[in-house]
Amino acid sequence: MKATEHIRAVQAFTRRELIGNDEELDSLAPAPLPLYRRFANAGLANWWLPEEYGGHGFGLSESVDIVAELAYGDAGAAFTLFIPILATNMVRWYGSDALRDHYLKQLVADGAFGATLGSEHDAGSELARITTTARRDGDSIVLNGQKAFSTDTDFAQFVVVIAKDADQDGEFVAVLVPRDTPGIQVEKRWSMIGLRSSGTYQVQLTDCRVPAGNVLRGNGLRLLEIGLNASRILIATTALGIARRARDLCLDYAKTKQVKGAPLAHNAVFAAKLGQLEMQIDVMANQCRAAAREFDEIATSKDPAAGFLRAGTLKSSLTTKMFCGQTGWDIVSCASEMFGGRGYTHESPVGKLLRDVRYVSIVEGGDDVLRDLVYTRFTVPVSKRS
Amino acid sequence: MKATEHIRAVQAFTRRELIGNDEELDSLAPAPLPLYRRFANAGLANWWLPEEYGGHGFGLSESVDIVAELAYGDAGAAFTLFIPILATNMVRWYGSDALRDHYLKQLVADGAFGATLGSEHDAGSELARITTTARRDGDSIVLNGQKAFSTDTDFAQFVVVIAKDADQDGEFVAVLVPRDTPGIQVEKRWSMIGLRSSGTYQVQLTDCRVPAGNVLRGNGLRLLEIGLNASRILIATTALGIARRARDLCLDYAKTKQVKGAPLAHNAVFAAKLGQLEMQIDVMANQCRAAAREFDEIATSKDPAAGFLRAGTLKSSLTTKMFCGQTGWDIVSCASEMFGGRGYTHESPVGKLLRDVRYVSIVEGGDDVLRDLVYTRFTVPVSKRS
Amino acid sequence: MKATEHIRAVQAFTRRELIGNDEELDSLAPAPLPLYRRFANAGLANWWLPEEYGGHGFGLSESVDIVAELAYGDAGAAFTLFIPILATNMVRWYGSDALRDHYLKQLVADGAFGATLGSEHDAGSELARITTTARRDGDSIVLNGQKAFSTDTDFAQFVVVIAKDADQDGEFVAVLVPRDTPGIQVEKRWSMIGLRSSGTYQVQLTDCRVPAGNVLRGNGLRLLEIGLNASRILIATTALGIARRARDLCLDYAKTKQVKGAPLAHNAVFAAKLGQLEMQIDVMANQCRAAAREFDEIATSKDPAAGFLRAGTLKSSLTTKMFCGQTGWDIVSCASEMFGGRGYTHESPVGKLLRDVRYVSIVEGGDDVLRDLVYTRFTVPVSKRS
Amino acid sequence: MKATEHIRAVQAFTRRELIGNDEELDSLAPAPLPLYRRFANAGLANWWLPEEYGGHGFGLSESVDIVAELAYGDAGAAFTLFIPILATNMVRWYGSDALRDHYLKQLVADGAFGATLGSEHDAGSELARITTTARRDGDSIVLNGQKAFSTDTDFAQFVVVIAKDADQDGEFVAVLVPRDTPGIQVEKRWSMIGLRSSGTYQVQLTDCRVPAGNVLRGNGLRLLEIGLNASRILIATTALGIARRARDLCLDYAKTKQVKGAPLAHNAVFAAKLGQLEMQIDVMANQCRAAAREFDEIATSKDPAAGFLRAGTLKSSLTTKMFCGQTGWDIVSCASEMFGGRGYTHESPVGKLLRDVRYVSIVEGGDDVLRDLVYTRFTVPVSKRS
Repeated sequence: MKATEHIRAVQAFTRRELIGNDEELDSLAPAPLPLYRRFANAGLANWWLPEEYGGHGFGLSESVDIVAELAYGDAGAAFTLFIPILATNMVRWYGSDALRDHYLKQLVADGAFGATLGSEHDAGSELARITTTARRDGDSIVLNGQKAFSTDTDFAQFVVVIAKDADQDGEFVAVLVPRDTPGIQVEKRWSMIGLRSSGTYQVQLTDCRVPAGNVLRGNGLRLLEIGLNASRILIATTALGIARRARDLCLDYAKTKQVKGAPLAHNAVFAAKLGQLEMQIDVMANQCRAAAREFDEIATSKDPAAGFLRAGTLKSSLTTKMFCGQTGWDIVSCASEMFGGRGYTHESPVGKLLRDVRYVSIVEGGDDVLRDLVYTRFTVPVSKRS
Repeated sequence: MKATEHIRAVQAFTRRELIGNDEELDSLAPAPLPLYRRFANAGLANWWLPEEYGGHGFGLSESVDIVAELAYGDAGAAFTLFIPILATNMVRWYGSDALRDHYLKQLVADGAFGATLGSEHDAGSELARITTTARRDGDSIVLNGQKAFSTDTDFAQFVVVIAKDADQDGEFVAVLVPRDTPGIQVEKRWSMIGLRSSGTYQVQLTDCRVPAGNVLRGNGLRLLEIGLNASRILIATTALGIARRARDLCLDYAKTKQVKGAPLAHNAVFAAKLGQLEMQIDVMANQCRAAAREFDEIATSKDPAAGFLRAGTLKSSLTTKMFCGQTGWDIVSCASEMFGGRGYTHESPVGKLLRDVRYVSIVEGGDDVLRDLVYTRFTVPVSKRS
Repeated sequence: MKATEHIRAVQAFTRRELIGNDEELDSLAPAPLPLYRRFANAGLANWWLPEEYGGHGFGLSESVDIVAELAYGDAGAAFTLFIPILATNMVRWYGSDALRDHYLKQLVADGAFGATLGSEHDAGSELARITTTARRDGDSIVLNGQKAFSTDTDFAQFVVVIAKDADQDGEFVAVLVPRDTPGIQVEKRWSMIGLRSSGTYQVQLTDCRVPAGNVLRGNGLRLLEIGLNASRILIATTALGIARRARDLCLDYAKTKQVKGAPLAHNAVFAAKLGQLEMQIDVMANQCRAAAREFDEIATSKDPAAGFLRAGTLKSSLTTKMFCGQTGWDIVSCASEMFGGRGYTHESPVGKLLRDVRYVSIVEGGDDVLRDLVYTRFTVPVSKRS
Repeated sequence: MKATEHIRAVQAFTRRELIGNDEELDSLAPAPLPLYRRFANAGLANWWLPEEYGGHGFGLSESVDIVAELAYGDAGAAFTLFIPILATNMVRWYGSDALRDHYLKQLVADGAFGATLGSEHDAGSELARITTTARRDGDSIVLNGQKAFSTDTDFAQFVVVIAKDADQDGEFVAVLVPRDTPGIQVEKRWSMIGLRSSGTYQVQLTDCRVPAGNVLRGNGLRLLEIGLNASRILIATTALGIARRARDLCLDYAKTKQVKGAPLAHNAVFAAKLGQLEMQIDVMANQCRAAAREFDEIATSKDPAAGFLRAGTLKSSLTTKMFCGQTGWDIVSCASEMFGGRGYTHESPVGKLLRDVRYVSIVEGGDDVLRDLVYTRFTVPVSKRS
């Protein structure tokens, strides 16, 4: 019920702030912080954080509904608003009590953002090849390196950095670093082809020094894997929101467009395409929900930290991102042919949807990487097969 | 638990009786009644019938697990064993107490089959065009007509016939007809390209006379729609079972086949295909389960008969059959290229899987029909969209 | 030989002026007329016009090679430079001697552009529904109406307008109108999602008056159909150029990118994708050439004007645009996933290629329209089937 | 003209002997030698053999027309009748004068068959792994080994065996062996899932002794590659014939089948599918012709033997087989859903077409093998790219 209200409030925000503002959201203007401020001021931000930190404590199942709503309006806004879940889940389950208490509470109180610094230019999908180092120096940890793609960093309250442990060969750490720590430098904002209301940055870390207690418990790569479970499912969910928007645009258009003396909406070929598309959307929705349920089962178990450590990457987080990325692309590709010449102009938002939905199959592991991962971890071992 | 045991018993049956007997099952020998007898003798038949009739009372969710197991072994056997659910669900919710009591109890007691006579040669997907008639004659109903495709009829205990009401223009009825009623003549068994361990028949009805009480409550076409909900979901589920079998055959083969000096199982292109396929299977499984849950929610509600009458065709029964039919075809098409020349011979079961899986997109409504139905009923009305 | 030299000069132009300038060409700056001026100054423009008008007289076969080169560099430039073929072919075969002599010679001499005003907002694919009128007034023809999408118009020397014959119900005309005729008003330039170095305009015609001799011989819709033969084949050819560019970008990237300790170029999954893509490009090239040959056969026959009138729309012009649009989209979709995060930024031209290639399946008849046309004209009549 | 007549005669043969006899041709009865005898008696066999051996001397371009006709009737018959081109092309260009004179003349005179023994169980696509040996013994060559898949062998006049040169490590030979040579034993005929009017065999060679002059000039693997050029293009062409048959079956059916009160042939969704399919067939036909032209250019050059040795595998023979195999499969998959329940029975030939067309993507190199080959030979070297 509380969730229902929340979702309704998100829906209202989407209608008010996102839909119809496609052009502005797509302009790569400075990341629209006032917009995100209004989201936070409405008490909607960081909805997944537990009540003990002042949050709403919604599960991933509710998050799927929330993110689908936001992405229906603008996938860049959705991504900006949910991607802190990656950093905060690592902190929530593997940070010290003090760390969680301080940073997660603060985040909720301020409606602020947490970011993750993972991938590097030569270590996109193969994170074991990262070269950013974390070196112990007395009671401090000192970080150095360059991170290629990190979203929300510029305006985040803290970041979680994945780094090689310079003191232990082959080990990796995840370290919480307050954003105002000296030595974090945002080198550039990427001009992305879609998701342009979000901000993704290249970041340089130069002798960033934080207390040793900021290191999260456990191997940094494993923690990142765990953190990616939720974000991959929500990235997949943005494809669902985009697909629904594309479908509704088609139906709106089809009411007015005449073909062979009747509205396009009465055309059998149009009906066939939309029937197929509706089916695909239905399956996407069920898949997102099934993955979220699997996640929530661990997250609400007695010891989620241990449960996730055991599980590592959830199969469903991989399959859901793969499926929704591929199917979302199919759907928007199909939709993008429906509007005649006008659909090839910026007067129709369908071109933006196409550019937006593309990211689903690219970020947090391209399909080639995920196919390999699914095969190795979940197909070769007989007991892990679906 | 009871369900778990039941599923385990079905699994054992599948291993013992189906896997490895592909050639025999595929031979279009007389429908293998002794095989189905052994299934019934093990207490496994008609698993979905309620305990009040002596059945196990399993829901559609459990049925998905059972049918996936059976179809892993042989889709024709799976189809033969679950398709009575179509007739029995109509009887269960819309037959008189006396009818249910008599026929459903008998069916369970005998481990027997119920069949449905719906489609006609000129009324495949457009059932409103059927010409079989049901005419009132005193206390009897007299049926006349020809039915094109009906599975299990030859050896069924009773059939449910969908017919035009000869006494009321534009009305249709569904009538339970004992199989040994004079005037039912099985004209031929179809030589189908797959599912060859099942029996599908063309049937002639000539002055078949049954008591008027054998007419089910409600419009015959609506009842058929309702009956199809469960069977369409289980037809979709056979694609899941077939897909799993295809995948496992690929993996078995890949362990022994050498490519470029290493087992095919270590080949990156093979891994990519199997990773994709595993993802698809995962989504199929989640979709079947989601559809079954939606069905079970109505089936276990206070008044399922009224609930189903209100709902009519469930969206998920359409989308699941469409999705699993299409995806199953993709998967087996892909698998059928993996075995070199041997995969093009009958020494590999993959050719049989290809022929078997084809039926999913054809029976109980081809995809063109279902796309149109989804569009009209679930896309045009805004509130029904996924 | 002369053609070979010409193609080599176009190649040099492409390397010098287009490749590497993706960002500028993509900026929707005022249509880059200086660029096109340099193309004309090099004697490369309007290459298809016959020698009798001072042109090079290259056939469509040579045009395929030329356009593929240009589109390899920039599809918008290619489109800008070849689309005058649509107007000039109508004038060449159906204009009076005087008209041809004057306008085609002038066009060659000035390296200038001709445009076509066909589609309207409510008559995209159904041109019989256009409402622009041509009315006879003494020795003049007076044109009135609005045209939705017309490329090159702003800087064209003349335009060919397709209009209803206001004096003869159900008839249509094609009229050559000098661009500086009073009453032609370019209302806006469309902000298109791709092809942004080209200029496509909405145009208002208000009492545009031209001599009656400017009307081309024959039904205007038929002439347009004939004109579209060449332009559709060349639109298809741009997909070929774009696909080659995408492939080469992948291969360049794959030399430097490391995956699992080796260059991506040695990766088996990459090889499989590129092998598939190479095959597709090979087929696209052969299809473009086959269509061009069919066109050239008529164009070099004794009476091409009569030949084209008889033939109307060439089947191969439809199938080639359909095939190359669909396959080009597949290829660039596939390529757009290969560059990791960087491929999602403007640092890679692949996002531009995706937006550019999209137009092939949209302009001059979307695939739904063309499928219908192919079916009606070339599948139903047994003798027209391939 | 002579070719035109020949093609017309083949067409007549197809109509008389193949179309309508699907069931018999599909029955895996003993390879229908009388049928092939009638083809030979009509002077139609071995049409590609040069006039100097008594043949018709038709090029591969004419062969494409001939094979498409035959495959329209029955792909197994087509395959049986053209596959000798593989063996005879090797003999024609690399056999001694005596060998050619004797065996090719005899073949033409008798309307007989030549077969090739290449692939082995553990060396399907990687022929360098074959273990069959050819050992010099005085003036003889002695062959030993087992060959897995060889078509026409049982009733061939001679076979060409690809073997390791037992006397020279790493070398391979191609040897012409008269079919009646002692030691050739046909171990079994494969029960294939399609092409069932053809005969493919497993063959054992035990001390088969032939004169040393029967060894063809050049490396056996290279000669096989060269031989495969023509056969791969013609295999691709069978997909063209099958696709045309599938299309025509759909159109015939659509004239009679009623949907929503009108013939299916007037249904917009049907039209869209058939329009797409017609386009695909058009592209297949152009691709087959383009590949054949490329082949014929070398074959009619001054020194074809040297030309082919230089060229080895022709790119177009790979791309054509890949494209037609994939597209043929798409087409027949699509067609196989169009006939309702009846299309799932043996009363419709579409199930046979599906099984027949499958072989195109499997024999003489599966797509995975060909993609790799295309990449290595024609994509990596910049100058070989399309």
